[in-house]
Amino acid sequence: MSRAAVVGLGLIGGSVALGAGARGYDREDGVREHARRRGIDAVDSLAEAVAGADLVVTAVPTDETPALLRAVAALAPGAVLTDCASLKRAVAAAAHTLDAGVRFVASHPMAGGRGHGLEAASGGLFRGRPWAIVPTARSDDGAIAAVRAFCISLGARPVLLDAEQHDHVMTWASHLPQAVASALARAAGTGGGASLPDLAGPGLLDATRLAGQPVSLALELALADPDALARAIDAVSRELTGVSSALRRGDAGALRALFEDAAAARRTFER
Amino acid sequence: MSRAAVVGLGLIGGSVALGAGARGYDREDGVREHARRRGIDAVDSLAEAVAGADLVVTAVPTDETPALLRAVAALAPGAVLTDCASLKRAVAAAAHTLDAGVRFVASHPMAGGRGHGLEAASGGLFRGRPWAIVPTARSDDGAIAAVRAFCISLGARPVLLDAEQHDHVMTWASHLPQAVASALARAAGTGGGASLPDLAGPGLLDATRLAGQPVSLALELALADPDALARAIDAVSRELTGVSSALRRGDAGALRALFEDAAAARRTFER
Repeated sequence: MSRAAVVGLGLIGGSVALGAGARGYDREDGVREHARRRGIDAVDSLAEAVAGADLVVTAVPTDETPALLRAVAALAPGAVLTDCASLKRAVAAAAHTLDAGVRFVASHPMAGGRGHGLEAASGGLFRGRPWAIVPTARSDDGAIAAVRAFCISLGARPVLLDAEQHDHVMTWASHLPQAVASALARAAGTGGGASLPDLAGPGLLDATRLAGQPVSLALELALADPDALARAIDAVSRELTGVSSALRRGDAGALRALFEDAAAARRTFER
Repeated sequence: MSRAAVVGLGLIGGSVALGAGARGYDREDGVREHARRRGIDAVDSLAEAVAGADLVVTAVPTDETPALLRAVAALAPGAVLTDCASLKRAVAAAAHTLDAGVRFVASHPMAGGRGHGLEAASGGLFRGRPWAIVPTARSDDGAIAAVRAFCISLGARPVLLDAEQHDHVMTWASHLPQAVASALARAAGTGGGASLPDLAGPGLLDATRLAGQPVSLALELALADPDALARAIDAVSRELTGVSSALRRGDAGALRALFEDAAAARRTFER
């Protein structure tokens, strides 16, 4: 890949730009200035950022992605385009609105962390993380291979799947943990009393970290497929009822079996 | 503090020994050898470890703590004793079984992380973390001050409270997140399908981290006050029902309010 460009310099886009040494653009002046202070070659127009790029990565919210892809396709007609939006059905559907010659492969890096925005960006953010690659109606084999190679160059692990599969898994891997973390934060914040903030350790902090995500992102994720998420939440509620029932029965054997099964499930997540 | 000793060289005890340059003892030969490879002055008998120590820290499970405190008190009659057990009512009650001249202040460092055992121990584990200090029937002001100073020397933030308060807060700050993480891990492991492990990102990993704790510790915590934990789980279930109801109604305003409130609660945990 001889030259990459990134549009949208938040946590994800900023990290791509840092990791790939890519040229960058953000519509906010302040973000571009911040990006330059972090060593990113951030330029003042979208056209200048994508001119001559072989690969253009968009890193903006899902609902802003289709229009941005159309704009980039017009400015960089030869480039392979990929996005980083959290939801892939909407983006894959939007691919049909791109001109026939446009080369677009949807994608979604599974990365994040304690911080938000460019401030928390790091060139190593994707190291060892999954990166979903979702072919669209505008994806050819060469374009898919180019996006794969780009993910790998950032240390990520490409995972090829279709938009339907991706969004199904995200209900469980992303939207559900977000909803559960928020429910836990609210319950503990109310029930734990005045000393809780003094004593919150890494366990509570990690378990509720996603409750601190930007509310706009939480809403975007929760509303992606509300019925699927509601059903996933019901599944967690049933599990919780299993634990509370075992506690009330004083059934240590049932609790042990639940915790052992949970630990086994957890191990499969950390491959 | 001129000399400290640590008994029990797991994640917590090992980290105390490393952070304080303390002499250490563990009843398992292999752990003592491992400790020496990590640079800890690990000796082969409890008596040798605590001889001449001003402060002795025990770091063993709650149910083994009272007997160990009695043994240490007999071997190091001049020392201030403190423990690191996760539950404080039982330990504070056991303080009454110590001889009248024994100086014992219960305590509980709120630290942990991805790993378990001595392998994951680090002298910096307690930096910036709360450390509960719980006076008992065998605590005098000088002993409390000595334990406070010791916590501070490890970079921790001492928080003074009584055993009843401590165990109440732990239901919400420790046992509840553990139960919720386990419920989430089981639900996602079942519902997420075959691609979930390929795509699990830091959000799911952090939200379920506590599900990977040793099952023996999870059980000890869950059974500390089963009714209180069951009520806390009910509170989370009610919060989850609030989210799923809003999703099914398509009530974005209610969801936004829930997520904003959760984010505000989360911010109070991270002072």
